[in-house]
Amino acid sequence: MFVSEVEADAAALFTRNQFPGAPIILGRETMQGGRLRAIVANSKVSNVATGQRGVDDARRMAAAAAAEVGTSADRVLVSSTGVIGVKLPIDLIERGIHGMSSELTIDPLVGAEGIMTTDTHPKAISASVGDATITWVAKGSGMIEPNMATMLAYIFTDAAIDPSSLDRMLRAAVHVSFNMLSVDTDTSTSDTCAVMANGLAGTIDRGTFADVLAAGCIRMTEMLARDGEGAKHLIRATVQGAASEDDARMVAKSLVNSPLVKTMVHGADPNVGRLLMAVGKCFDAAIRADATDAWINGHAVVRRGQRLDFDEDAVRASLRDEVVTLEVSLGVGTEGATAYGCDLTQGYIDENAAYYSS
Amino acid sequence: MFVSEVEADAAALFTRNQFPGAPIILGRETMQGGRLRAIVANSKVSNVATGQRGVDDARRMAAAAAAEVGTSADRVLVSSTGVIGVKLPIDLIERGIHGMSSELTIDPLVGAEGIMTTDTHPKAISASVGDATITWVAKGSGMIEPNMATMLAYIFTDAAIDPSSLDRMLRAAVHVSFNMLSVDTDTSTSDTCAVMANGLAGTIDRGTFADVLAAGCIRMTEMLARDGEGAKHLIRATVQGAASEDDARMVAKSLVNSPLVKTMVHGADPNVGRLLMAVGKCFDAAIRADATDAWINGHAVVRRGQRLDFDEDAVRASLRDEVVTLEVSLGVGTEGATAYGCDLTQGYIDENAAYYSS
Repeated sequence: MFVSEVEADAAALFTRNQFPGAPIILGRETMQGGRLRAIVANSKVSNVATGQRGVDDARRMAAAAAAEVGTSADRVLVSSTGVIGVKLPIDLIERGIHGMSSELTIDPLVGAEGIMTTDTHPKAISASVGDATITWVAKGSGMIEPNMATMLAYIFTDAAIDPSSLDRMLRAAVHVSFNMLSVDTDTSTSDTCAVMANGLAGTIDRGTFADVLAAGCIRMTEMLARDGEGAKHLIRATVQGAASEDDARMVAKSLVNSPLVKTMVHGADPNVGRLLMAVGKCFDAAIRADATDAWINGHAVVRRGQRLDFDEDAVRASLRDEVVTLEVSLGVGTEGATAYGCDLTQGYIDENAAYYSS
Repeated sequence: MFVSEVEADAAALFTRNQFPGAPIILGRETMQGGRLRAIVANSKVSNVATGQRGVDDARRMAAAAAAEVGTSADRVLVSSTGVIGVKLPIDLIERGIHGMSSELTIDPLVGAEGIMTTDTHPKAISASVGDATITWVAKGSGMIEPNMATMLAYIFTDAAIDPSSLDRMLRAAVHVSFNMLSVDTDTSTSDTCAVMANGLAGTIDRGTFADVLAAGCIRMTEMLARDGEGAKHLIRATVQGAASEDDARMVAKSLVNSPLVKTMVHGADPNVGRLLMAVGKCFDAAIRADATDAWINGHAVVRRGQRLDFDEDAVRASLRDEVVTLEVSLGVGTEGATAYGCDLTQGYIDENAAYYSS
């Protein structure tokens, strides 16, 4: 449970998956108020594909948290993450919530750990904006190609910002961060990204706040990608010279989503043809084969659509770095975008073939 | 090399990847004639991203084959498959083609074996239509989500059919077969599907020919899917009750492309939430969560968007079958489609992380 000392202005983005979980259905209703006092989340069971009973259970969870912190149920956002198609043990959850307000701590890693599923470590970061602080808490490492939001990402600040500005800034930040993240192309039914601003630190510079908000979301996106199921590398794919931002985003996503690019990074094998393949399969993007250049970790490997005679040993060595940067210039315009992903390893197969997970 | 005794009417479909290989660039020119005497193909080097030199090499390969069988270069279709960005050893290939006409055999498996890369076995089938025969030869097991055609698939018949009818029938057959195949979502730069009809068996019933052509393409598609890199299972995903054929195709493809569905099949774990996730992430399809039903190998597992209490042991046991059938009814219309794929295993990672492949 994440609780603000006072009621906060709030904004949230949810999954676009057409089988939204019960907490998403309830959350869309809750967020119409634009105000939150708390977020309550459970892991292991996602309360998805559970029908009306699921929505009733989510309401009971909100009501239990509201009673515990002294607010109304429509000021509590509920999240659930875990296996799909299993009913919440709601009696157990209600008993668990009772008394929890006395156990709250200021360490965001405690809450981050509480919402983990296949994550290998809890994820929380903080940054300052003037007198205010922003804290990000997130989880998620599989079934991750968010669209409108990410698995579960919560952002807390004591800056004073009205809900509509908060919503606008959140959308802008998510556009360049969580929405450019993909672990495995699979869009969860439970993605939620919410921000609460309780105003206790007063007003701050809006532009600076928006910049820090986006930078923190990008950093958290990189942490989620690096901790993708089975991953050993963070892949950062940057596309420049695109005819439109949509084209740049499509090509950057294609690079981080290609199983052959992901296994290339895993194997530290500079098979640059796979980069061209992943660019070229974006049928709807403006691409000119003879204008395309590419770099792996700064090494030029393709010029004007042709493979260069590069130093394979140097590139192979650089591919062992934890962060692998792929850059492509399409040479047809001035737009760009960056996507975030991870390599594909046997660990992903092990976790998802052998484990009854979400 | 595949050679017809006499010049044949012909049609072909090529990859939509925007970095087409040199043989594709040349092949589009060659197919303008609508007539072929031979197809010549090499494996190991795909002649992609090789610039003008690559196209010149492909022309030399066509000319060498034409000289060998006594035709002109514009009556020879060239294919290359293998690693991208490496120049063809064209002198070696020319020497290899010289004298090859004396080694031709009627066994299509010989040619099928000659074009293999990571395939575990050669793929060729034959069927009769009246007095005529159709023979399919194909290869491909990774970098496979053809769009307009498949990796390399050649179809030979002695039926008499004019090029425009042949082209129309080939497009219809590919639409429901190779274009519904995905091993790994990665669309190759070399996909080619060509048909030659030399007329030696005379005219046949057009309707029957079209039906057999499509059925053979579907069977070959299943063989390619089953032999996907590292695969242990063929996945057949059928979607019914869709509002449009495009919706049905999109959802069926989403099912066979989802890493979480693929690993579920690999792990023989009936995690049915993943089916709903893969359906629901088709944002642009008409989907009603409360109208969606699903079956695994004939066992009902989801009704009206909710997980049923099904016999998990029975479903788990059925998931060990070599062929796994996933069926989804969207309940919003009358259109349907079937897609073909395979499970995702450690074998895929091993082949593509450790092997300098295409």
